[in-house]
Amino acid sequence: MRELGEFALIERINSGRVQAPGVLLGPGDDAALVAAPDGRFVVTTDMLIQDRHFRLDWSGPRDVGRKAIAQNAADVVAMGAVPTAFVVAFGCPADTPLELVDGLTDGMWAEARRAGGSIAGGDVVRSPQLVISVTAFGDLDGRAPITRAGARVGDTVAVVGRLGWSAAGLAVLTAGFDPADELFAEVLAAHRVPQPPYSAVLAVVADSAAEVDNSELPAIPTALTDISDGLLADLGHIAEASGVAIDIQSKTLRDPALATIARRLDTDAAQWILTGGEDHAFVGTWPAHRDLPPGWVPIGRVLAGHGITVDGVRHPGSGGWESFSGVDSASEPEPR
Amino acid sequence: MRELGEFALIERINSGRVQAPGVLLGPGDDAALVAAPDGRFVVTTDMLIQDRHFRLDWSGPRDVGRKAIAQNAADVVAMGAVPTAFVVAFGCPADTPLELVDGLTDGMWAEARRAGGSIAGGDVVRSPQLVISVTAFGDLDGRAPITRAGARVGDTVAVVGRLGWSAAGLAVLTAGFDPADELFAEVLAAHRVPQPPYSAVLAVVADSAAEVDNSELPAIPTALTDISDGLLADLGHIAEASGVAIDIQSKTLRDPALATIARRLDTDAAQWILTGGEDHAFVGTWPAHRDLPPGWVPIGRVLAGHGITVDGVRHPGSGGWESFSGVDSASEPEPR
Repeated sequence: MRELGEFALIERINSGRVQAPGVLLGPGDDAALVAAPDGRFVVTTDMLIQDRHFRLDWSGPRDVGRKAIAQNAADVVAMGAVPTAFVVAFGCPADTPLELVDGLTDGMWAEARRAGGSIAGGDVVRSPQLVISVTAFGDLDGRAPITRAGARVGDTVAVVGRLGWSAAGLAVLTAGFDPADELFAEVLAAHRVPQPPYSAVLAVVADSAAEVDNSELPAIPTALTDISDGLLADLGHIAEASGVAIDIQSKTLRDPALATIARRLDTDAAQWILTGGEDHAFVGTWPAHRDLPPGWVPIGRVLAGHGITVDGVRHPGSGGWESFSGVDSASEPEPR
Repeated sequence: MRELGEFALIERINSGRVQAPGVLLGPGDDAALVAAPDGRFVVTTDMLIQDRHFRLDWSGPRDVGRKAIAQNAADVVAMGAVPTAFVVAFGCPADTPLELVDGLTDGMWAEARRAGGSIAGGDVVRSPQLVISVTAFGDLDGRAPITRAGARVGDTVAVVGRLGWSAAGLAVLTAGFDPADELFAEVLAAHRVPQPPYSAVLAVVADSAAEVDNSELPAIPTALTDISDGLLADLGHIAEASGVAIDIQSKTLRDPALATIARRLDTDAAQWILTGGEDHAFVGTWPAHRDLPPGWVPIGRVLAGHGITVDGVRHPGSGGWESFSGVDSASEPEPR
């Protein structure tokens, strides 16, 4: 990479890329210009650090690129917004192989396309390890954002997407099981590249109205988030922001595939399902008297009070990922 | 910091902050919501790595915070846009003192305010060294963006802001001169915190029309950029994007204060002025038959052809900062 130099590298990264229609001015000037037809834009940012959020011996460069975009796109969609564009600031050592950068950027572009946007610009710097900082944008098309604060007592809690698969894949890698074992193929893939079910949210909001109780129109969630810290932790954010309690029924969360893997690892799949982040499934609260849209699975109910319970019992443990938790690094969660 | 944990840290960072009017939904949900009254938004991103882009023995945390925001705000203003908001992804070791984080965030907020926006959201992660990734947004209020591609043969090249001061301050630090020497106070301050003259651009564009030759209205630049890689390098970007040549008159660039410091360091101030980045002055090309707005200093002319000359002579050397230049790290520019 150092032979190429910064400007040639940027040219290589951007070469042959076709911008989404909303990117009015792409890379090459002091800044990019992105359409915001709604007159507002949704924005979120996430930073991934090598050996903390990903390991290159566990994930390929393309996987890491897809993951970096997916976790940001999921945050945009969790507001009820349609992803439009991304910018990426990227740090790497000077001796980084070009194939690694190519893989990363190809993965980023593939996931940006899948989410409905493109990469409008970025920055490339030298750093001691890989650092990927993605900022993602979305458009609400005139709708109100779906925050974490709208859950109402009596609402149905429902989820779409996988729970605990990424955590199961991480557990397989951490415990040193053979990653070539066919049994683990799907959870390892899920760990390497989350597949947030964007369309399960976007199809709902696209035809909706702001009035959640208008029975002429499809129901939309009263509150919504993506699961990045773990189901219980992220439901905790909704409960706290909305001033409600939430109870989950464990029987709705059983996953035979994960149970089989858990038995092999001599552990319990419930922990993965309840506290595993990174699958970027979506969880929302819905008007109780309305049908759930296709793909959404009811898992519990919004109650008066505060906090999260499973089958009426408060769950032990912190139940999610915190960046600075633990008293020393050995007690921390593994890089993910 | 590790005692505090991620969520408490985020709460601390955001505590007591008042968002700019354009930030419709600030930190605390999956994403922020920012107004884009123009129906488009300008966006740019820059990443700063500890010991590469700043050193904490040379700059205080507050300085680093201000610099991180300023260099992004300058890019927004260099498009002719008014800064509206910023998001910041931030990585640091778990043993980072809270005072350092407080200083950084206070500096960021101070500069965001100076530029006209606020910090709408962000991300905090653990990383081996400080990493600060800022994304900045701006609104064009219906105007066309001022790109690097609009320079026309015959235009006047003019600059506003300091040139070479940051480079002089860096040279003082690199050469090991006494930073307490009063002679160096201003260039050291300039190195620690750039002061992009935002208002010298924004006052011009605010009252302008898209038609640069309408003599009823103030002139606006045909092309504009901020000086981050060095005057010659950044003019090179304009010349290349516009398909023109640019000649600079060296006598317009003399700076007695820098000359005095250069003599003490037994070097030549011209190198700092021509190739020093990081002051984030603005350089633009202007219709030749129109008066320059207050503060803008003519330094040269746009010619047919390509490339940059000083007094008609091509300048030796690369003339600017490239992230991966040099064959090994020892030959690289020092952290800045």
